[in-house]
Amino acid sequence: MRKTFFTPGPAQMYPGLQDHVQQAFEDYIPSISHRSKQFEHIHRHTVEALRAVMGFPLDFQVFFHSSATEIWERLLQNCVFLESFHFVNGAFSERFFDIACQLNLGPYKQEVSWGEGFNFLNEEVPATVEMLNFTHNETSTGVMTPVESVYSFKDSHPDAIITLDTVSSAPYVQVDWGKVDAVYFSVQKCFGLPAGLGVLILSSRAIQRSNIIADSGTSTGSYHSFQAQEAKALKHQTPETPNVLGIYLLGKVCEDLAEGGIGRLRWDTNGKAALMYDFFEKHDRFEPFVQDRSVRSRTVLVMDVAEGSHGLLSYLGEKGLILGDGYGKMKGQQIRIANFPAISMEQVEELLAAIQAFDKG
Amino acid sequence: MRKTFFTPGPAQMYPGLQDHVQQAFEDYIPSISHRSKQFEHIHRHTVEALRAVMGFPLDFQVFFHSSATEIWERLLQNCVFLESFHFVNGAFSERFFDIACQLNLGPYKQEVSWGEGFNFLNEEVPATVEMLNFTHNETSTGVMTPVESVYSFKDSHPDAIITLDTVSSAPYVQVDWGKVDAVYFSVQKCFGLPAGLGVLILSSRAIQRSNIIADSGTSTGSYHSFQAQEAKALKHQTPETPNVLGIYLLGKVCEDLAEGGIGRLRWDTNGKAALMYDFFEKHDRFEPFVQDRSVRSRTVLVMDVAEGSHGLLSYLGEKGLILGDGYGKMKGQQIRIANFPAISMEQVEELLAAIQAFDKG
Repeated sequence: MRKTFFTPGPAQMYPGLQDHVQQAFEDYIPSISHRSKQFEHIHRHTVEALRAVMGFPLDFQVFFHSSATEIWERLLQNCVFLESFHFVNGAFSERFFDIACQLNLGPYKQEVSWGEGFNFLNEEVPATVEMLNFTHNETSTGVMTPVESVYSFKDSHPDAIITLDTVSSAPYVQVDWGKVDAVYFSVQKCFGLPAGLGVLILSSRAIQRSNIIADSGTSTGSYHSFQAQEAKALKHQTPETPNVLGIYLLGKVCEDLAEGGIGRLRWDTNGKAALMYDFFEKHDRFEPFVQDRSVRSRTVLVMDVAEGSHGLLSYLGEKGLILGDGYGKMKGQQIRIANFPAISMEQVEELLAAIQAFDKG
Repeated sequence: MRKTFFTPGPAQMYPGLQDHVQQAFEDYIPSISHRSKQFEHIHRHTVEALRAVMGFPLDFQVFFHSSATEIWERLLQNCVFLESFHFVNGAFSERFFDIACQLNLGPYKQEVSWGEGFNFLNEEVPATVEMLNFTHNETSTGVMTPVESVYSFKDSHPDAIITLDTVSSAPYVQVDWGKVDAVYFSVQKCFGLPAGLGVLILSSRAIQRSNIIADSGTSTGSYHSFQAQEAKALKHQTPETPNVLGIYLLGKVCEDLAEGGIGRLRWDTNGKAALMYDFFEKHDRFEPFVQDRSVRSRTVLVMDVAEGSHGLLSYLGEKGLILGDGYGKMKGQQIRIANFPAISMEQVEELLAAIQAFDKG
């Protein structure tokens, strides 16, 4: 049966991806040495294609990790002696905070209820915090934090490293690179790739911070310390044998995304999101979980479902339309719909028609 | 041009792998949730297929990492308060030692020259060491350490965790699971898979050691601490979104390997190795780098090349036969040939014929 994955990660594969995989095998990409000129060329191409899509300046570097989860650990090891600050409004921002605890750091958090945005009061965040961590798009709740409120911390906390989790919003999110130090995502969300690759786009300032920590004698990790990663990245290599195929495929998908135009991608995303929110707001069965429209995600839509979501998810699943269930404690009460670039307007219309048929059935 | 990769990792893809990849895409494996029953089934299947190949008992668990390099870091974080002991005879055993230094531990090493085996004197290893690290097959030098000398430390150092690097020798290596606590490899070597997955097979004793360290308040890492990994592995899941496609493909290749028979695999490996060593010993141009036959690797063959290796490597490369160069300081002076399961006797014969043609040319 043909299936369409509206799940927010792993998600629908990017159109044409299988052709890229086949080409990779024909060109022996999985067999080439990660110390060869050919790999350096792939690395360079992927970084440049990603730059074309995300628009980061030349003094930002790209470090490849195995997951966004790994990136949380590496950011904490490399940029924090003691105090990180976490804005927590869902399961994933909470997990970043938890990792700081597990590493025996002394993290702060400001927490709001699931589905709500923050009332950012910069003056309430201690001036001593070394790293400020924002989640642009909470995949568990569908809250999208306006980037302007993140950027305001650049002035109020000029010494802090500012990180932005764009796991389920890059490359839709438009980043002001003068206001942040670390932006990261994993490829199985909006980039429509197989899981197993996390991408960290990092300012030279964040690397300098890591160097200060390393110079003090505190460990910044080993093979994935920013020192070890930078030394190799400057040669278009990685410290370890990386997910070569994943890096190659990310370059191909970024090429496709850049060709389609990033403005067009944002326009399409907004259009599909508007259609879906409009549909669900008019239906008695559904209510958007995020009440405040100004923080409603365009890339991960979360709806409360009267009478629960399991019947609907099963019905749609039988038609090959795979949606996300509510996350964690919201399981069975919500649906989560990924509005990623791999999903077309036609597929959205097919989904909404199927939901209408379920309502009538 | 058709190419055959005799490189010791990344290496020749396992025969039929591309069909498995295509099947995976047809079954939407890259899109499925890592919290679904379908993923749990894949995880369970891969662990069981790997057990069929490697023969580890039920009280050993399998933890999936992104590389063997990551596994070095995780073993040190989870099993060592201070003192690890490293037997160093090449670039990779040295790197494991380096990682212990980078983590601010106090590692010991016993070092021999590249190409030489150890003269194991158990009584010279302090009784206090917490972890003893052996490299079964040094990919950089082609030295294969007899497992019996590793096993002897189980009696002389009963409290130490014993780890065995089988990165370029599993599943050829025959492990006595009563004598070791951790055996690990990465899939881009003998398993003929795309890079991006490291596999750690771990005893319950090693997990208990990690629990002692965690209970003392020392950090054992975060999402990949053995506590976090065990909690998920018992449910056939992983803490983070893993390389789902890699785990799936490893299961398929293990199925194929088990079907062919592991005894047959060892027999074939020995046969191909014998043919190659015989050929190179008789040729004036070549000399096996490892003088002592009892420690010569059957899976990674390293030859000194009179007048240097670059001309030969270029000549063979033009014929689609890709060999490894000497590693690090031996670059240009040696060739390294992977004798992995994906390489057939016919391909070995083709290689040797091409080398003969070069000699005559």
